[in-house]
Amino acid sequence: MNTLKHYIDSIEEIDADFGEQALDRHNNLTKPMGSLGQLETLSIRIASMTHTFPPVVGRKVLFTLAGDHGIVAEGVSAYPQEVTGQMVYNFLGGGAAINVLAKHAGAEVIVGNLGVKAPIESDHPNYRHLKIADGTANMAHGPAMTEEQAIRAIQAGIQMFEDEHRKHPIHLAGTGEMGIGNTTPATAILAVIAGIPPEQVVGRGTGIDDEGLTRKTTAIQKAIQINQPDKNDGIDILRKVGGFEIAGLVGVILAAAKNKVPVLIDGFISTSAALIAAILNPICKDYMIAAHESQEPGHWKMLRILDKKPLLNLNLRLGEGTGAALAMQIVDAAIKIVTDMATFSEAGVSNKD
Amino acid sequence: MNTLKHYIDSIEEIDADFGEQALDRHNNLTKPMGSLGQLETLSIRIASMTHTFPPVVGRKVLFTLAGDHGIVAEGVSAYPQEVTGQMVYNFLGGGAAINVLAKHAGAEVIVGNLGVKAPIESDHPNYRHLKIADGTANMAHGPAMTEEQAIRAIQAGIQMFEDEHRKHPIHLAGTGEMGIGNTTPATAILAVIAGIPPEQVVGRGTGIDDEGLTRKTTAIQKAIQINQPDKNDGIDILRKVGGFEIAGLVGVILAAAKNKVPVLIDGFISTSAALIAAILNPICKDYMIAAHESQEPGHWKMLRILDKKPLLNLNLRLGEGTGAALAMQIVDAAIKIVTDMATFSEAGVSNKD
Repeated sequence: MNTLKHYIDSIEEIDADFGEQALDRHNNLTKPMGSLGQLETLSIRIASMTHTFPPVVGRKVLFTLAGDHGIVAEGVSAYPQEVTGQMVYNFLGGGAAINVLAKHAGAEVIVGNLGVKAPIESDHPNYRHLKIADGTANMAHGPAMTEEQAIRAIQAGIQMFEDEHRKHPIHLAGTGEMGIGNTTPATAILAVIAGIPPEQVVGRGTGIDDEGLTRKTTAIQKAIQINQPDKNDGIDILRKVGGFEIAGLVGVILAAAKNKVPVLIDGFISTSAALIAAILNPICKDYMIAAHESQEPGHWKMLRILDKKPLLNLNLRLGEGTGAALAMQIVDAAIKIVTDMATFSEAGVSNKD
Repeated sequence: MNTLKHYIDSIEEIDADFGEQALDRHNNLTKPMGSLGQLETLSIRIASMTHTFPPVVGRKVLFTLAGDHGIVAEGVSAYPQEVTGQMVYNFLGGGAAINVLAKHAGAEVIVGNLGVKAPIESDHPNYRHLKIADGTANMAHGPAMTEEQAIRAIQAGIQMFEDEHRKHPIHLAGTGEMGIGNTTPATAILAVIAGIPPEQVVGRGTGIDDEGLTRKTTAIQKAIQINQPDKNDGIDILRKVGGFEIAGLVGVILAAAKNKVPVLIDGFISTSAALIAAILNPICKDYMIAAHESQEPGHWKMLRILDKKPLLNLNLRLGEGTGAALAMQIVDAAIKIVTDMATFSEAGVSNKD
C-alpha cells in the first residue's frame, strides 16, 4: 500500500504553459479563432498534459482488461459467464469490435487477464496474464475482493502500462474492458460515489430484460447495504463493490497520468475506474479525455462528476475500448490541426479586421 | 432546365434489401445486438444507399466549392472579401484545415471555383474552374443571381461529381465550402424554408460583433422582403437568396444521390444546400449523412427539417468540409465493423441465452 500510495502521490500537475503555446499557434492559423471547437481545446489540453509543444501523433495503445464477477450468480447479465474468456480469445484472434476499430485507428490492443474465471492459454504477444483470482466474490454477500487483491490488481494495471511505455513510448492511451456482469459493479461504484440510490442509475448493460433489471437492481442494493463502502476511500469502494478489470484500469489511468500520457476513457465501466482514480488523486482527471457518452443511463452522471464533455455520442454500449478507439482519430486530428495547418502569414491570407 | 429536371427526376430510391443483409450480419457478430449504436445503423443505411452488401471502404472525395457574395457590401462578415480567393489558394497549397483533416481521413479535396470574385490562376490537378460570375449580386437589393445562373451552377456541381466519379468511382462523398459572407444566404435559405423570422436563427458566422449581427439580420430581412422567394421552389430560393457555391453543392448532392453514393453533409452552409436538394427531390435525403452539428445556431433547425441526427458534435463552425472529413472516419469504421468482425460461430463465442 505504501508503494502504491507513493506512486499515486508522485503524479504531477499538467503544465498550462504548453497549452498556451498551442493556443498562440491556433490564433495564427488560417481559420477564425475557435472555429474548430473541441479540436482546438483538445490540442491545447494535450500540450498541457504531455508538457510538450508541438504535441506528437505517435504510439496509440488500448488496454483492454478482462475479469469475471461473482455477482453474476444473482442473474444480472443477459450473457453466460463463459463469454468473458471466449471474448479474450476473440480479442487475441482479431475478430472483436475493438480489433477492427483499433486497426482503423492505428492503435494496438493489449489484452490483460486480471481475473477471468476460465483458464486462458495463449502465447499471443499482446496477451498479459495478470490474474488475481478466478473472478471476484459475490458482492451481494460480502466484499468482491480483499484489500490486498485490490491493490495487487491496481499495481498490475500500472505495471502493464509501465512495461509497454518502457518498451516504446506511448503517446495516447485508451481504456477498455470485458467482463460479463461488469455494469453491475460499475453501477454500484457510481451509486456509492454519487450518493444516489442504485435504482436511479441502473441500466440494461448488454441488454437484460425487465426481470433481470429488477434482479440487477436488488443485487446492487444488497452489495452496498452489506458492504457499506466509504465513498471517500477509492480502495474501499473498489474492493467492496468493484472488479479486477476495473481495478486494473484504475492502475492504467494512474500510470498514464504519472507518465504524462493522455488517456481516453471509454464507456460506463471504464469511467467507473476513472471515478476511483480521481478519488485516489484528483490530478488524474486532468490527464483524462472522455471518449464518448454511452447509452448506459448512468454514464452522463459519471461524466458530470468528472466534469468531462465527451468527444462522441454514437449510442455505443459495448465497452472493450471501442469508443476510445474511435475517439483516438479525433485526438490525432486535433494534434494534426495544430501542427500541420498554415498560418495567415505563411498562406498569405488576410486576418479578421 | 428540362435537362436538369430530367436528371433530378431520375434519382432512384435506396434499396432496403441491402440494409436487411447488413442487419442480419450485425445480429451474428460478436457483440450484443445494437451495442454499436450509430455505427450499426450507419452501415445498414450505407448498404441501402449503395445497393451493395457488403459495403466498400473506398475512394473518398470532398467537394469544397468557393464563391463570393454581393451581400458583403452590407457589412455582414468579420473578414474581408479577398479572403475567399486567398483561401482557395490555401486549399490548393495544402495549408488549410480541410487539407489536414482530409489527409487524416484518406480523402481527396476537389476545389471548385463557382464564383470567386478575385481571379484564380492555378493548374493544380484538384482545381476546377467553374465560375458563373464574379460573385453574386447583393440580394438585399434584388435576386442574388438569375435563374439561368442558378441552373448553370447546379449543373456545374453535377458535372464536377460525374467527372470525378467516371475517372475513378467515388464510394463516399463530402460537401464543403468557402465564401466570405455565406452564412448570410444560408440563414436566408433556412428562414424561407422553415418560415421563421431571420432574427430567430441568425448567428455570428466566422465571429462578427453585435453591430455586425444587427447588420446581418437586417440584410437577410431585406433580402427576403424584396425577393419574396417561393418556399416550395428550390431554384427560386437559390437564385433569390442563395450563392454560387451553395448551388454547386446542390448539384454535388443531386449527383451523389443519382449515383447511389452516400454524401456527408458538412455544416451550416452545406446543409442549406441539402435543404434545397431535398426540395428538388426528397429522395436525396436518403443519401445524405449529417456529419456534425455546427455551433451556428440555425444548424440544428436545418437538421431537424431534414430529420437527420448528426454523427459528431464538436462545436465546429469552420465549414470547408472539415466536419465531413472528420465524419468520414466514422463512416469507414461503421463499414469495417460490418465487414471485418467475427460472427459468434466463427469466434466460438456463446450468444445471449
